[in-house]
Amino acid sequence: MRIGVIGAGRMGGALGTIFAQSGHKVLFSYARSRDKLDRLVREAGADASWGTPAEAAGTADVVLLAVHWARLDDALAQAGSLADKIVVTCCVPLNESDTELVVAHRQSGAEALAAKASGARVVAAFQTTPSEVLRPAFKARERHPRPSLVYCGDEMKSKATVATLIAAAGFDPVDAGGLRIARYIEPFAMLGAELAYGHAGGPEWVYRFARLDSLVAG
Amino acid sequence: MRIGVIGAGRMGGALGTIFAQSGHKVLFSYARSRDKLDRLVREAGADASWGTPAEAAGTADVVLLAVHWARLDDALAQAGSLADKIVVTCCVPLNESDTELVVAHRQSGAEALAAKASGARVVAAFQTTPSEVLRPAFKARERHPRPSLVYCGDEMKSKATVATLIAAAGFDPVDAGGLRIARYIEPFAMLGAELAYGHAGGPEWVYRFARLDSLVAG
Repeated sequence: MRIGVIGAGRMGGALGTIFAQSGHKVLFSYARSRDKLDRLVREAGADASWGTPAEAAGTADVVLLAVHWARLDDALAQAGSLADKIVVTCCVPLNESDTELVVAHRQSGAEALAAKASGARVVAAFQTTPSEVLRPAFKARERHPRPSLVYCGDEMKSKATVATLIAAAGFDPVDAGGLRIARYIEPFAMLGAELAYGHAGGPEWVYRFARLDSLVAG
Repeated sequence: MRIGVIGAGRMGGALGTIFAQSGHKVLFSYARSRDKLDRLVREAGADASWGTPAEAAGTADVVLLAVHWARLDDALAQAGSLADKIVVTCCVPLNESDTELVVAHRQSGAEALAAKASGARVVAAFQTTPSEVLRPAFKARERHPRPSLVYCGDEMKSKATVATLIAAAGFDPVDAGGLRIARYIEPFAMLGAELAYGHAGGPEWVYRFARLDSLVAG
């Protein structure tokens, strides 16, 4: 395939190189400097070249959009029409300081609960796993690798207590940070529900978070 | 520990039973019927009992809140003060029909992009994995199990094309459904970023989605 990459940052650079080394023709575009594009093309090999976003979009079977959200409108204007193109977006709609999603996602149920239940030490946990998998995972608790279970909260001691419950239930507890991370954990629970109930394979859906080394070694 | 469970649905029932069978004293509460509570106590064994939400909250070291979001205010009113309690919430803030989060999360960058890039066949992919893991995962692509990589979009043919790119990059493609699922995938990307960059172990963070059987067998 011909793949046009718009955005030459870390994601666009790595993916474009990988696509080129997988046998696709890759055209890089939209870097801050021509040097960066030259370097990417050298690294990616014979099937890579660079050009303008309009060339990346115009000649491609697939367009990879890998720009910062703040540059989206500019990148689209330079690319021209994308009608009928397959556009793969790996953009996350972040603010300029990369700290928050600018498209919704600014509250969580767990934080709302903490505001209602004055003084309670709220820990968000167990919402990312379908109820159907709880008993089977508990039965399988001596087997490895265990599924992960993510939790968050603002007080270390309460979180440590909850982590023992998660471990006893047969999961590896994964501390994701403060209670505000529930803004991401709750939508992740929705993603899990989609995969558990909306797709083949049945509701015993689990996930495992790992560093690459330990996943492929396990 | 003494664990008070508020909410006797599928999550509260399964978790309370597991906690009781892990050696904790569990008090179930807040069911639609007394029969349901009786049944849970019988299943959970000698360390389980039932009572009111106020009893569940008042006597507990840890309170598990497992009610539908629509019942949260009622459950909290019945529970009384939770000050200084460890409160584990597995609630997801859903509307009455369980189809949408009612706390934010009603848009996505991918949908916003599709609205801007008229006619483009937008597929959301590759945003859930840190850039640092792309090259190592590509190098490890013959090893198993592979990390997962979730994607979504509204057109099957475009998605199939993108799935081949994901597979060639060394990941197992996971089709999460239509483009609106980006509302959940983008926050999941933020959760992954939190775990990749905010915690020990380095940025080569990956995830694997699986059915329980295949995870523990793999």
